[in-house]
Amino acid sequence: MSKGITSKNDDYSQWYNDIVIKADLAEHSSVKGCMVIKPYGYSIWEKMQAVLDQKFKDTGHSNAYFPLFIPKSYFSKEAAHVEGFATECAVVTHYRLKNDGNGNIIVDETAKLEEELIVRPTSETIIWNTYRGWIESYRDLPLLINQWANVVRWEMRTRLFLRTTEFLWQEGHTAHATAKEAIEETERMLDVYADFAENWMAVPVVKGKKTPTERFAGALDTYCIEALMQDGKALQAGTSHFLGQNFAKAFDVKFTSKEGKQEHVWATSWGVSTRLMGALIMSHSDDAGLVLPPKLAPIQVVIVPIYKGEEDLAKISGFVDELIPRLKGLGVSVKYDDRDSQRPGFKFAEYELKGVPVRLAIGGRDMENGTVELARRDTREKMTVPQEGLDIYIVQLLHQIQENIFNKAHKFREEHITEANSYEEFKQLLDTKTGFIAAHWDGTAETEKLIKEETKATIRCIPLDNKLEDGVCMVTGKPSIQRVLFARAY
Amino acid sequence: MSKGITSKNDDYSQWYNDIVIKADLAEHSSVKGCMVIKPYGYSIWEKMQAVLDQKFKDTGHSNAYFPLFIPKSYFSKEAAHVEGFATECAVVTHYRLKNDGNGNIIVDETAKLEEELIVRPTSETIIWNTYRGWIESYRDLPLLINQWANVVRWEMRTRLFLRTTEFLWQEGHTAHATAKEAIEETERMLDVYADFAENWMAVPVVKGKKTPTERFAGALDTYCIEALMQDGKALQAGTSHFLGQNFAKAFDVKFTSKEGKQEHVWATSWGVSTRLMGALIMSHSDDAGLVLPPKLAPIQVVIVPIYKGEEDLAKISGFVDELIPRLKGLGVSVKYDDRDSQRPGFKFAEYELKGVPVRLAIGGRDMENGTVELARRDTREKMTVPQEGLDIYIVQLLHQIQENIFNKAHKFREEHITEANSYEEFKQLLDTKTGFIAAHWDGTAETEKLIKEETKATIRCIPLDNKLEDGVCMVTGKPSIQRVLFARAY
Repeated sequence: MSKGITSKNDDYSQWYNDIVIKADLAEHSSVKGCMVIKPYGYSIWEKMQAVLDQKFKDTGHSNAYFPLFIPKSYFSKEAAHVEGFATECAVVTHYRLKNDGNGNIIVDETAKLEEELIVRPTSETIIWNTYRGWIESYRDLPLLINQWANVVRWEMRTRLFLRTTEFLWQEGHTAHATAKEAIEETERMLDVYADFAENWMAVPVVKGKKTPTERFAGALDTYCIEALMQDGKALQAGTSHFLGQNFAKAFDVKFTSKEGKQEHVWATSWGVSTRLMGALIMSHSDDAGLVLPPKLAPIQVVIVPIYKGEEDLAKISGFVDELIPRLKGLGVSVKYDDRDSQRPGFKFAEYELKGVPVRLAIGGRDMENGTVELARRDTREKMTVPQEGLDIYIVQLLHQIQENIFNKAHKFREEHITEANSYEEFKQLLDTKTGFIAAHWDGTAETEKLIKEETKATIRCIPLDNKLEDGVCMVTGKPSIQRVLFARAY
Repeated sequence: MSKGITSKNDDYSQWYNDIVIKADLAEHSSVKGCMVIKPYGYSIWEKMQAVLDQKFKDTGHSNAYFPLFIPKSYFSKEAAHVEGFATECAVVTHYRLKNDGNGNIIVDETAKLEEELIVRPTSETIIWNTYRGWIESYRDLPLLINQWANVVRWEMRTRLFLRTTEFLWQEGHTAHATAKEAIEETERMLDVYADFAENWMAVPVVKGKKTPTERFAGALDTYCIEALMQDGKALQAGTSHFLGQNFAKAFDVKFTSKEGKQEHVWATSWGVSTRLMGALIMSHSDDAGLVLPPKLAPIQVVIVPIYKGEEDLAKISGFVDELIPRLKGLGVSVKYDDRDSQRPGFKFAEYELKGVPVRLAIGGRDMENGTVELARRDTREKMTVPQEGLDIYIVQLLHQIQENIFNKAHKFREEHITEANSYEEFKQLLDTKTGFIAAHWDGTAETEKLIKEETKATIRCIPLDNKLEDGVCMVTGKPSIQRVLFARAY
């Protein structure tokens, strides 16, 4: 334990919070439920954004920007949608403040909006109202647009990154001529998310579909990627929705087909948010702090000189000044911390806390021996390595670390997918082993609700590659054709 | 005039609007005062963001993110600040909607906020309230942070990009140990803005200081860059504020100095917004549409094949398929438009409208002759150029176009800075020649106000490099030591 981080095994929730705060990732703001994303946390989010943005562009999408505010009447047009979001909306009712004459600033009641504006919790309604003007013919389709934005969903209980009233996200909104194309898009973007989670975040995910109960409000089908945290709880890391023609019908968006017919457009939407930061932190970190996969680490290598006096430092710095450009040339981000205000031990703890994948310490004896001391953050191993060929060695090591972090998380996840064959066994597994539990379910919302009420476990998804297997529902004994994945979840 | 764009000389305002709409840059949304930034417009904004973001990082700044909402009480803590923004604030008063039982969605009056939240019009207050927790000692300074965000200022009369209720911007907020360092930062960021405007946007700007009347609400000094549009009206393109200790005092942000004393921190803030899009459009465009400087053009070169039959097209495409990777290798963004659904003339007009700097047309005869037809968007010149060495030629031409666009705007600006030596002459110049008018002013807010009321001209700035010159105020005859720049402005 460094810098007073609670041990993961003592109090997982406090451990998480300690890392977020002490690694300078984010903090609660004075606005209830809203967070401040601090520079170090934001620099990780920026790296995530850059990778995702490129993937969206590579799959043919363009970015655009739609209004923050949604008129209440638009918001209400799709019945299931408004029902899903109505109870968590921030509502703008006035557009002016004034001085009350006694030096107090109050809301100017004469500046009341005729129609209230909702701060977007998601943008389907305002976007589909706009698409009506953009789509006339099949030539305008597919329309493939993404938006990076802030959204607001009023939350009573918040946790940094995982559940906040305001959060940052991207929301893709696409329009297609056929259901088939829209479903293909929904699946394509799920694959993009899964690829990002596994190959950049090093977080293994299960791709699946949500049950009707857990679908996005207004969707015909919700696909998701589900990750498993180190405490055995699941976390929904991204969703991709097939919206059918629901929004096209609610907003009267039609196109003229090749055959000259007027038809409603088919839609998808998909999003990931700053919640991914929570998944990243909880998947890999340990009692010394954050562990970052090299591909998303703002600093991949930190170099700390160990010196006595200026002469010593000058020698070390000479070597480092020559090493840094070579590393940068190989695409490695590197920081040289030669502050004299802090001792090496303090620096070591700080960069461990912040999850920097590789630390080099270089002292006078290293300079004599032509070596450096290298510490891996993921395994916390230390080793002495030659200065010669160090740049190439580090590039290879960063690959290994990326792989190792993924493999470790994958092994944990695989060990925590357990089959339960009775409701008793199911409940016992939930309380002891935790993780995903694969069990038979009769397919009804009633049984799903009962299980949730009794155990706090929800159906995370029906895996896309699920094998069919005859069985009986663990609760009702009714026939079932496949197991689904249950878990307690964030 | 293409695609029904109003001529600039007939109706400048309608011309501007036509370009924004017809070049697919932005449109009004159904939310009063809020715009939709369309994919093509957004792709230009993304290029601007990328360049500015790198410049901020190169000058030592990090990005972070602060809440969208500001509690009313915080907002009110700096007296001048709240007075400046109170009359244009969107106010959130409730956090839930409900069904009224008759199928209508209404605001749930039981979910009224104890304290109203203001949608940020700018973030000094919430940020300085946060900085109190981040700054303890001189070692924590300078604190150099930037935020990319949306902000809301309620506007009654809006114009796309130039004045919208919601807009996108960046806001830098820095904290320093001394007034001197804060002023240096204020000036450094003004220089960054000026460099960006001139060398990327190709928009010449005057760097100056605002008069006390025109200062940012809460600033001790506001620096600005002022550009001149083709109709002779000025546009404030960016501001950088020296905030003194006003916000540090309002939010009690102190640090322990090297000498061990508790002192209030010194502050700056600085921002540019999607308004820059308006400046970009109005500075260079013509009656055929948008003219973009190559450095900010999402597509720098478009290639249109002119062909009869598949065989012809195959030959041309063979050449193009070999040209494109060479251009991309040189950092040129290029699009090959071989759609067969549109005729070449239609395509030419479309890319002129969208401001693509260089258009290549290649026909069967060109293939025989080893040439292409090249059209420059800035001068609308057409020329026949050899296929051999075309890639290098284009790179050089893009540089020339960037330079030419700047020079043209610079010449126009220089021709439109005119000295006036009497109020009569001043008024006449405003109505006839337009542009910046350099005139003597007695330095009082009263005279400034009178001139504004009588002529709609404001003091745009006192140029930083102003030469001192004894004179008398053109209105009051009182002594003056320098001319200041007046103009009618956006």
